[in-house]
Amino acid sequence: MTMAMSAKGEFGRIRDFLAPLAGDGAFGLTDDAAVIAPSPVSELVVTTDTVVAGVHYIGDEPAREIAAKLLRVNLSDLAAMGAQPRAYTLNFALPAAIEDDWVADFCTGLAEDQQRFGIGLLGGDSVSTPGPATLTATLFGEAPVGEALRRNGARAGDTVYVSGAVGDAAYGLMALQGGLADLEEAHRAALIARYRLPQPRLALGMALRGRATAAADVSDGLVADLGHIAEASGVAASIRLADVPLSDAGRAAAALADDGKVAALIGGDDYELVFTGPAGLDRSFGGGSVPVTAIGEVAEGTGVAVIGADGDPVALERTGWRHN
Amino acid sequence: MTMAMSAKGEFGRIRDFLAPLAGDGAFGLTDDAAVIAPSPVSELVVTTDTVVAGVHYIGDEPAREIAAKLLRVNLSDLAAMGAQPRAYTLNFALPAAIEDDWVADFCTGLAEDQQRFGIGLLGGDSVSTPGPATLTATLFGEAPVGEALRRNGARAGDTVYVSGAVGDAAYGLMALQGGLADLEEAHRAALIARYRLPQPRLALGMALRGRATAAADVSDGLVADLGHIAEASGVAASIRLADVPLSDAGRAAAALADDGKVAALIGGDDYELVFTGPAGLDRSFGGGSVPVTAIGEVAEGTGVAVIGADGDPVALERTGWRHN
Repeated sequence: MTMAMSAKGEFGRIRDFLAPLAGDGAFGLTDDAAVIAPSPVSELVVTTDTVVAGVHYIGDEPAREIAAKLLRVNLSDLAAMGAQPRAYTLNFALPAAIEDDWVADFCTGLAEDQQRFGIGLLGGDSVSTPGPATLTATLFGEAPVGEALRRNGARAGDTVYVSGAVGDAAYGLMALQGGLADLEEAHRAALIARYRLPQPRLALGMALRGRATAAADVSDGLVADLGHIAEASGVAASIRLADVPLSDAGRAAAALADDGKVAALIGGDDYELVFTGPAGLDRSFGGGSVPVTAIGEVAEGTGVAVIGADGDPVALERTGWRHN
Repeated sequence: MTMAMSAKGEFGRIRDFLAPLAGDGAFGLTDDAAVIAPSPVSELVVTTDTVVAGVHYIGDEPAREIAAKLLRVNLSDLAAMGAQPRAYTLNFALPAAIEDDWVADFCTGLAEDQQRFGIGLLGGDSVSTPGPATLTATLFGEAPVGEALRRNGARAGDTVYVSGAVGDAAYGLMALQGGLADLEEAHRAALIARYRLPQPRLALGMALRGRATAAADVSDGLVADLGHIAEASGVAASIRLADVPLSDAGRAAAALADDGKVAALIGGDDYELVFTGPAGLDRSFGGGSVPVTAIGEVAEGTGVAVIGADGDPVALERTGWRHN
């Protein structure tokens, strides 16, 4: 990797900021590559995301928040696989206008989440770009061989579950964009915080190994991500609208939003886990750090149906949104 | 990872092109993450590079060549660590103007080098950008636990070696930029090919496990990369200018270049291996697919000296160049 090579280049400053974050196997970011070894009974789970300033984030957020969100969307993928986080690499393409203060603040965000989630920086690369800042994080987790959660194991008769509350991020984005004007301030702040800073459900993901039949994280939206499970598993799934869990702030927002609770179905960025398995997992796992709610059923067929309080399907114009 | 999530987005097309490249543990690019397990006696070696259109490549090269070079600069890092290549992830940030033909040709380059080097696509991400195309490859290799080659093991008394011939890439770049006008066409073509398409020294790197005391690939330039070894090892190194190996085309170019053989010392992008070890490794390994030449010595001290034919040090204005 060229993070080491850039020691004398324009971005030597980045290595200076990053070197204190180097973990086991990173060789202090001074070698051609880094080394990571899972335990002999484990395999490595790998996930990666790229974000672009002005596309995936506004650009004027605190840099530490951008760093935390970049790590956490990837940590959420590890949670969906039931993996224990271990390490990560980072690739920076930065415009010349980015200043040391920004890099320092970004690294503060990294350092805080390294501590919080028990991960270390393994290496990376830093280059300059005439375009917008473009950041890639690749996260490495560990799971016992063959026990990583997949999307393709849902079977007819399984129950559909979701962790925590969905919709907060979508309502938070509405609020950031000037919507939900009548929302009380505490609720507004809670929703925006959920949009800005995902809480990856890592403990739940690991607890679901060997219990859930399929899992995904809610990044595109509840219906879209359950749809990914249904497609990979070759089954149909249904969601009972009334059972979809909202937070207190989410309920207050849904009461004000044009499309009510629909944002909770199609909004992305919640980073909860949606998963399938035998009946009763809500009781087994609901006592943990995050509640688990049974919201629907798996059946033979294809697609995802949302069932209203009257027992009839609810039509959705979109099944999710995405950044591209 | 969001390569799967982008199935319905603007870059669903990328998944369609990439899906046939998916290797073991990639789950057909349809899951939240991928899985890779080194053998129980091995560890994973990880390296990553980012390239930006207009910065690291011109942009009008054939896309398959950009793909191959991106993989190979990383494969060269694996070679420097003595690792056997296994798999890779790819992150694309692409402007809207990039067309399907470009993506298809890029994937042809990936497919060819997957075959050539025995690697499979593990996953990735694709997003759009208002800026230039920005591509990140992260390569995974495997080496027996504790046997990966490092930069920090050179000791006073060791011999310094380099594989193949150095300088070709630097002379090739000169030729591409309109220099070396009197060079004969076959030599010009050979040098440009070396600049465009690195040949990672993987077999040599693996053969050097347990034999070389330190190794790096020549990406910044021979003096700079030997300098990295010297710095990491806490030693000094010297290079005998007369012994630095040039190719036939490189010798022809050096005879025409303003600074003669200096480009072979400070030019980057050769992707040969520079390494240290006991005397005689040139005879042990020189019979392989690539020659190995003894070019200098390791001593106590710091820094890298280049010794001319008269036995006096040669002054270099630069010790290497870098892309940033």
